Formats: sequence, C-alpha cells, structure tokens
Amino acid sequence: MEKVKGYINANDRLARFLGIEIVDIGPGRATARMTLADEHTNSLGMAHGGTLFALADLAFAAACNSYGRVALGVQASIHFHRPVATGLLTAEARELSQGGRMASYLVEVRDESANLVASFQGLAYRKKDLLEC
Amino acid sequence: MEKVKGYINANDRLARFLGIEIVDIGPGRATARMTLADEHTNSLGMAHGGTLFALADLAFAAACNSYGRVALGVQASIHFHRPVATGLLTAEARELSQGGRMASYLVEVRDESANLVASFQGLAYRKKDLLEC
Amino acid sequence: MEKVKGYINANDRLARFLGIEIVDIGPGRATARMTLADEHTNSLGMAHGGTLFALADLAFAAACNSYGRVALGVQASIHFHRPVATGLLTAEARELSQGGRMASYLVEVRDESANLVASFQGLAYRKKDLLEC
Amino acid sequence: MEKVKGYINANDRLARFLGIEIVDIGPGRATARMTLADEHTNSLGMAHGGTLFALADLAFAAACNSYGRVALGVQASIHFHRPVATGLLTAEARELSQGGRMASYLVEVRDESANLVASFQGLAYRKKDLLEC
Repeated sequence: MEKVKGYINANDRLARFLGIEIVDIGPGRATARMTLADEHTNSLGMAHGGTLFALADLAFAAACNSYGRVALGVQASIHFHRPVATGLLTAEARELSQGGRMASYLVEVRDESANLVASFQGLAYRKKDLLEC
Repeated sequence: MEKVKGYINANDRLARFLGIEIVDIGPGRATARMTLADEHTNSLGMAHGGTLFALADLAFAAACNSYGRVALGVQASIHFHRPVATGLLTAEARELSQGGRMASYLVEVRDESANLVASFQGLAYRKKDLLEC
Repeated sequence: MEKVKGYINANDRLARFLGIEIVDIGPGRATARMTLADEHTNSLGMAHGGTLFALADLAFAAACNSYGRVALGVQASIHFHRPVATGLLTAEARELSQGGRMASYLVEVRDESANLVASFQGLAYRKKDLLEC
Repeated sequence: MEKVKGYINANDRLARFLGIEIVDIGPGRATARMTLADEHTNSLGMAHGGTLFALADLAFAAACNSYGRVALGVQASIHFHRPVATGLLTAEARELSQGGRMASYLVEVRDESANLVASFQGLAYRKKDLLEC
C-alpha cells in the first residue's frame, strides 16, 4: 500500500499542483493533507468548494485504490459544513462497503481544531486491472 | 450581472490558479470554461475529479450569485460520465428552483465534441447581503 | 419495452402499495405517475420525502431496465424544491449517460401545474443478466 | 424530545402506512425501525430503494426536528450497499453539523445482523417556527 501512496503522490498532477499529499494509507482507508494558501480560496477569501472537494477526492482515490486494483470514482456528494480560510486541512477516507464491482467511501475533512469542514460520500467502480506501480 | 462575472473572474483565486473563467452569465445561469493541461490530471492522466468539480462549482457559484445577492454552496453531488484527457471543457449552470433562502442548480460539463463528461447538482443558501462588487 | 413496463407494474410491490404506476417507457426513459393521498404525507401534511423519492426511483428503475437487461440502483441524490400536498405527480426519467457497466439518469418530479417539485439523479449498475419478463 | 417522537409517530402518515416507527430520539439524533414485508419490495423481491430511503428519511426528520424547531429536508443522497429481502431494519441518524439555518445528518441503515444496507446524507433547512406538538 505504501507503493500506492507513493504512486499517487508522484503521479497525481492536480494534487501536486494544489499541494495535497497522501500522508497515510491502509486497506480501504487513506488520509490526505494540505495547507491552505491564497490560491485555494474563492472570491469571499474562504477555502473554495473545489479545493475541499479535491482534498476529499484524493483521500477517496487513495482509499479505493489501496488494494492495488484500479478503481474509478463514478459519483460523489459533498456537504459543506463551515467556512475555513487558513491552516492545515485533513481528509480521512474510510470504506463503507465493498462488494464485487462497487465500493463506497465516507470522507471527513477537518480543520486544525478538528472541526468538521466538509463531509463527502464517494462511489467507486472497481476494474479488474491492477495499478501499474 | 457583468459586474458579478468580472468580480468572480478577478477575485476567485482557485479559478485563476486552475485557469477557469466565467465566459457568460445571466439571471440564474452561467457558463465556465477551461483548457485541460497537465496540472489538471490524476495519476491515470485523465482530468481529475477535483478539476471537473471545480469547473462545475464555478459555473454554479456564478449562477447562484448572478442576482448580486451573496449565495453560498451548501451541498453538491456529481456524476462522472466519461473520462477526458485534453481540450476545452465547458460547464453550463442553470437554475432548477429558487425560493426564499434555498436555490438549486444543475450543471453540465461537456468536452469539445459536446459529449457529457460530468453532471452536477448544487444547492445554495442565499444570504440577505449583497455582493460587494 | 412494454413488457418491462408491464413487468414492473405487476411485480413492484412498493409501487402497487403506494399507487405508483409506470405510464410510459422508451429506450433509456420512463414516466411514472401517482395521485397524492393521505397515506403519502408527512407530519406537516405535505408529500413525504420518501414518497417523492419512491416515485422518482420507480421512473429511474423503469428507465435503466428499459433495455431488458437487469440494472440495479446503486446511488441517488434528490433535491426537494417545493412542498406539494395534493393532486397528480409525474416523474420523468431520462438517461444522461450509459457506458459499459454504469448508467446515469436524471428524474424530474412535477405537480399538476408542471411546477418542479423534486429533481433526482440516479446511478445504476448494469448486470449482464436479462430481465425475466 | 419524547413529544417530538410521539408527534411524528402519530402524524407521519407515510411512516404509519409503511410500518416505520421512531423508537429512540435525542438531541440531533434518532433511530427508526421497520420489519420488511411484501409491500416493501421491488420487482426483484428485495427491499425497494424507496423503502430504504423512507426509513432513513424518517430517522433524519426526527433527528433534525428533535430540538422542537421545524426543520425541512432540502436534499438527500443515498448509497445502496447491499440487497436485503426480509427482517428488521434499523436506521440511525446523527448530526454532522448544525449552524444557523442549515443542519446536516448522516443516517446508516442496517439489517438484523448489523450489516450496512444503505447510507444516507441529508441536509435540512431550519425554520424559526416551533413544532406544534
């Protein structure tokens, strides 16, 4: 699984561009982190919905690919709970179910004080192919 | 409304960082555009879920703020229909309903050949404050 | 496709119990209808979220099974736009995409005056099995 | 809060019609229960998506109205994890966030063996009115 983490951190271009990193991975779970900067904000100066989604989506991607088999996100839903402007954000993804071709994950995004900033539910389609890492 | 468009294009930092621009705006609707580049891709070399979401989210934000009153995204759900790697992407947001404090939008993201790449449903909470633009 | 419509109308027990009927079906699309009665309401006397979802879900099920191949709903998201208490409700489902194992649908629920009451996005997983009808 | 529970159990007509009952309620949380019967199934003989949604929605409604202030469901998203045909189903709703006018809930639906059958995220808009119970 450390291979999957290294592979994503090295090859996910959007994550690198936005400064998002997978910091932990396990079977069906992963943690992603980023520090908010100016380029992550919307016109009100708060973390952009797209930023929070990208952070959650990366934790989701790592969790659903953690077994070394290619899984593609097919759907996601996100609730934005509270605005956040600065500091470290952490997204923790855990598996809700996995059976055959589909797998479902819940991701919680929290700020430095562990306040819930956003919650994300994602659905992945699992291919038979193995990750090339 | 042109003011709202100009305001978002000037002040939405994530949009500028990712190269997303509002190209058209009207009452309850908006169109956003971007050209895919390396920094928008995931580890499979395709447009990242976070990229597609950010593009749709920007069209949604412009549409729900088009009346000049501050509206905040509180929820969004996205379906990813087909992978896309390069070219121009367009997101068109239109209002499904608007009543009192809540407003609902549908956003379709299409590639250069008008194939549907993602569809997004977003819910906004409308504040009484006016946009400062 | 008329066979699929007849099969669902005859065998979907919840639909029969709630008085929901598939009235039209085509490739990747279907229309369901019901007349609101007391048993469909919540404690405020309005159509229950569960009622509106069930109506939309039945149109979705008919649309994604319209080709005669078994498709299972794996996810759905619904926005409730306006309350409705009485009268005829119509749900129209149309296909947004279909490729390989996944298919995506949009369903709009309208009241007698064609006001949008709820909108629903559903994702189906398509099995290889044929419907036994 | 027991008043809210009694009020919903007495006045939610769909819940009574489907045999769904609120069995426990607390601040920002509630548990709903039902025993699956023929009238809850789809044409494949499994619990209908509309049944699972209605069960989750009732737990959500009780949780978001638990404070005695009227709250309306404005959006919900559900993942269906595994089919279930018979037995007792339990839905537990808990609050993810609550601030000003919006409140967000997560509901887990489990079968008799505590397997996760569906998970539901719902968003409520809180009015200033008090429940008349």
